[in-house]
Amino acid sequence: MEKIYRVIAIGGAILFSVISTQSVMAQSEAVEAARYYYQGNGADIINHYKEYLKIPNVASDISNIRRNAQYLVDEFEKRGAKMELLELPDRKDVPPVVYGEITVPNAERTLVLYVHYDGQPVDPTNWSHNPWSPKLYSKSMEDGGKPIAFPQLNQQVDPEWRIYARSASDDKAPVPTLLATLDALEASDIALTSNIKFFFDGEEEAGSPHIRQYLERYKSKFKDGDLWVFLDGPKHQSGRPQVVFGVRGITGLEVTVYGPRRPLHSGHYGGWAPVAGQMMAELLSSMKKESGQVLIDGFYESTAPITEADREAFATLPDYNDQIRKDLGITWSEFDGQPLIERYMYPTLTIKGIKTGNVGKKARNVIPKKATASLGIRLAKGNNPEAMQELVEAHIREQGYHIVREDPSMATRLNNKKIAKVTREKGYRATRTSVDNPMAKQIVGAVADASDDEVILYPTYGGTLPLYHFTEILNQPLVIVPIANHDNNQHAPDENIRIGNIWYGIETYSSILTMK
Amino acid sequence: MEKIYRVIAIGGAILFSVISTQSVMAQSEAVEAARYYYQGNGADIINHYKEYLKIPNVASDISNIRRNAQYLVDEFEKRGAKMELLELPDRKDVPPVVYGEITVPNAERTLVLYVHYDGQPVDPTNWSHNPWSPKLYSKSMEDGGKPIAFPQLNQQVDPEWRIYARSASDDKAPVPTLLATLDALEASDIALTSNIKFFFDGEEEAGSPHIRQYLERYKSKFKDGDLWVFLDGPKHQSGRPQVVFGVRGITGLEVTVYGPRRPLHSGHYGGWAPVAGQMMAELLSSMKKESGQVLIDGFYESTAPITEADREAFATLPDYNDQIRKDLGITWSEFDGQPLIERYMYPTLTIKGIKTGNVGKKARNVIPKKATASLGIRLAKGNNPEAMQELVEAHIREQGYHIVREDPSMATRLNNKKIAKVTREKGYRATRTSVDNPMAKQIVGAVADASDDEVILYPTYGGTLPLYHFTEILNQPLVIVPIANHDNNQHAPDENIRIGNIWYGIETYSSILTMK
Repeated sequence: MEKIYRVIAIGGAILFSVISTQSVMAQSEAVEAARYYYQGNGADIINHYKEYLKIPNVASDISNIRRNAQYLVDEFEKRGAKMELLELPDRKDVPPVVYGEITVPNAERTLVLYVHYDGQPVDPTNWSHNPWSPKLYSKSMEDGGKPIAFPQLNQQVDPEWRIYARSASDDKAPVPTLLATLDALEASDIALTSNIKFFFDGEEEAGSPHIRQYLERYKSKFKDGDLWVFLDGPKHQSGRPQVVFGVRGITGLEVTVYGPRRPLHSGHYGGWAPVAGQMMAELLSSMKKESGQVLIDGFYESTAPITEADREAFATLPDYNDQIRKDLGITWSEFDGQPLIERYMYPTLTIKGIKTGNVGKKARNVIPKKATASLGIRLAKGNNPEAMQELVEAHIREQGYHIVREDPSMATRLNNKKIAKVTREKGYRATRTSVDNPMAKQIVGAVADASDDEVILYPTYGGTLPLYHFTEILNQPLVIVPIANHDNNQHAPDENIRIGNIWYGIETYSSILTMK
Repeated sequence: MEKIYRVIAIGGAILFSVISTQSVMAQSEAVEAARYYYQGNGADIINHYKEYLKIPNVASDISNIRRNAQYLVDEFEKRGAKMELLELPDRKDVPPVVYGEITVPNAERTLVLYVHYDGQPVDPTNWSHNPWSPKLYSKSMEDGGKPIAFPQLNQQVDPEWRIYARSASDDKAPVPTLLATLDALEASDIALTSNIKFFFDGEEEAGSPHIRQYLERYKSKFKDGDLWVFLDGPKHQSGRPQVVFGVRGITGLEVTVYGPRRPLHSGHYGGWAPVAGQMMAELLSSMKKESGQVLIDGFYESTAPITEADREAFATLPDYNDQIRKDLGITWSEFDGQPLIERYMYPTLTIKGIKTGNVGKKARNVIPKKATASLGIRLAKGNNPEAMQELVEAHIREQGYHIVREDPSMATRLNNKKIAKVTREKGYRATRTSVDNPMAKQIVGAVADASDDEVILYPTYGGTLPLYHFTEILNQPLVIVPIANHDNNQHAPDENIRIGNIWYGIETYSSILTMK
């Protein structure tokens, strides 16, 4: 019962109505079954995982990537799933989406589980071992772990062990975890409570260039999906369980303002010629205060408001803000020190770069002919990328600028006092499921139920993933449930997974797949 | 008489009292003698000049630079000057100052004539000819001039001819001009009216690194100087005679402001972490409006006021401002289009460069850790370089910054909210003789008298020359009297002098050396 109260403290009254005592009892049974299973079959699970990790999985390595796809088909078919390779017509050179279904009688809902089976490209010379020859260590290399042999059948497995291999965490780890979860529930004769659909993406680390084509072509397969659960990413560094409800969107612009059409001697023309850097400084200052507030009309208007549920979610997160500031060597942050997690809920305007003339040893006594600024915009829920770019451009116009898309001609120069070239970057929207979405709250309840630690609810990551393709095309809610250790060297050499995190995953997935 | 009235129109009533009808008559006689002389001896003058131009004169080429010095000693001794090489003790590796004196019975004053005998280094591969093998052209190369033979004795000389060679204009041209002037006055038995001292600088183009040592060591030789006349530089592009009364000073600063101590992911930290580029934009905008006005407290306070005489001088200058703006592709200039010449009378603050993060293809979704701006300051008369830097720093402090001289340590970071590293550049003051200085006005009168065109009075050049060494150490007024054609390719390949400009110089110098 202790756990229930903890969940209540997080999610508030609405959550309480969803998680009945009965369902918690059922989930606990599943979690216990999971624990019993990996304790008895730990060596087998990780030896099987070793074989999967041996198959190279860079998206461009098409023959190997298809070996990975076939592995998924074979293994999930063994567990009774109906598997299928989704292909684009005449595109055998593109990694297929591995699709699967497990249909459950009287299912409460349909969950779509997303995993990506490709991994980041590697430079083997930076690795301690061949990234496709999995190695077991007694603990993390940083903590002085030593290589050890993979375990014999029935040998006891230490949760601190780590497997080092490409994609060990990102994002093959959910595969042995799901397989063991299905085996554990089967072994204890516990039924799934949801229909399951699998979506294994084969080119996430390559930027998912065909994801929209796949989703549009095969969207009927997912039309009955109630919730997407993205099984990807590392857990919070505190090690506490975590559910994430979305990611920020992104766009940007590059702005160039013009002075004289050639660089001028600062003696012959200084104090008379317009100075592009000064114009840019004035323009940028008119857009935003250094203290954080964006001054562009309407910039915050389209943003979804922060709800009481969001604030309750913020409260689940340890307040690391002072510690982060100290680590970064700063005594302040924007918006009077408001917490990072809260600022994720608003759009941002960030100067990524300014270039005019030169500084340091290259500085010359010259008035530069132009100044360029690269502006990054992160989007919160509700913000449309093009509409945000429009607002920025409207603001630039209000400052007296004529906007062009190419460097101005002499005619353009002589017909306009101030000229700004604006280049728009592509963008995509934020994706965020409400923290109090009923389906998402069931997931939170299930995750909470699998752990003794309080669940961290992250209304949104600060970063950006192309999740909007899924929500735009399918219009279904999603959550992200990470299981990997935070120090997994994701995207880097010596990527690894801590065995205990797979065990955590088996417990968590068992809880999710059996939630009422 | 026509000329007198023109001069009166320029200089006003005070000038009228200086230039009596009698003195104008005497000067006209000298100018006529000059004209008569070069018309009869033109071929001889330029053939002699050719020999002088053959001696390479880069300051670091010490054996050749000393051959140049010896040439000056020999040629001026032939005209009765008492010549001397001024040396620094045990520094035969340094170009000497060539000093000379012509003492005149009952002289009205002592003029010190400055010329530099070294020239800019050359890259011969960019020249149409060897820069030390003078070539005569029928007119400028740009206007389709063709190489022609140097003239035979008594052959007629066309004033449009040009000699191409390093230093043909900058700054050997005054040497044949002075020699011919002395010969012309001697031939017509016209006496000089001023004592003359010569100061031939041998390392001006190398930045005059030993000029202060020379001036301090030998200042007693110049203590009776009434006015320095700098014989250097090109005339105004209108071709009209010109007298310049000074140059602007210069200094500068580089300012770096700091955000987090490492670059941060703009997703994970955007909207929360301080953005160095935004801080810099706000700081720079607080210093100056893009429309021109510097907002730093006291920035204009120490500046010498513009006098009525200065305004009369401005009026001698053709108003090219609209034409320059059009050429530069701009429809406006700072301070509501005030003329360039007027803005030369005020200190400037110019952003020479800003660098933070990256733009264009190198732009990344990163919050940069710092932003740097290079600020140039041109000084007007009255401004002290260090005091101006102090004002800028005081302003930076007023914006809440703690100023450091090195990148901040963690302790400094954690003890100060905003930190700016300021690096001060060396600087030197403006040098400017009042337009209504009586001695300077005599020079204007003499220059006016040698030409049918109205004299352009330039209270100051916009650029900077290290003239302040002379005025600081000797405290004597100075003017600059240029004779070279404006299109002389000074400091560039294919430097040249138009023969007509030497003729103009002989007339002008004759007028100056005989002014009452």
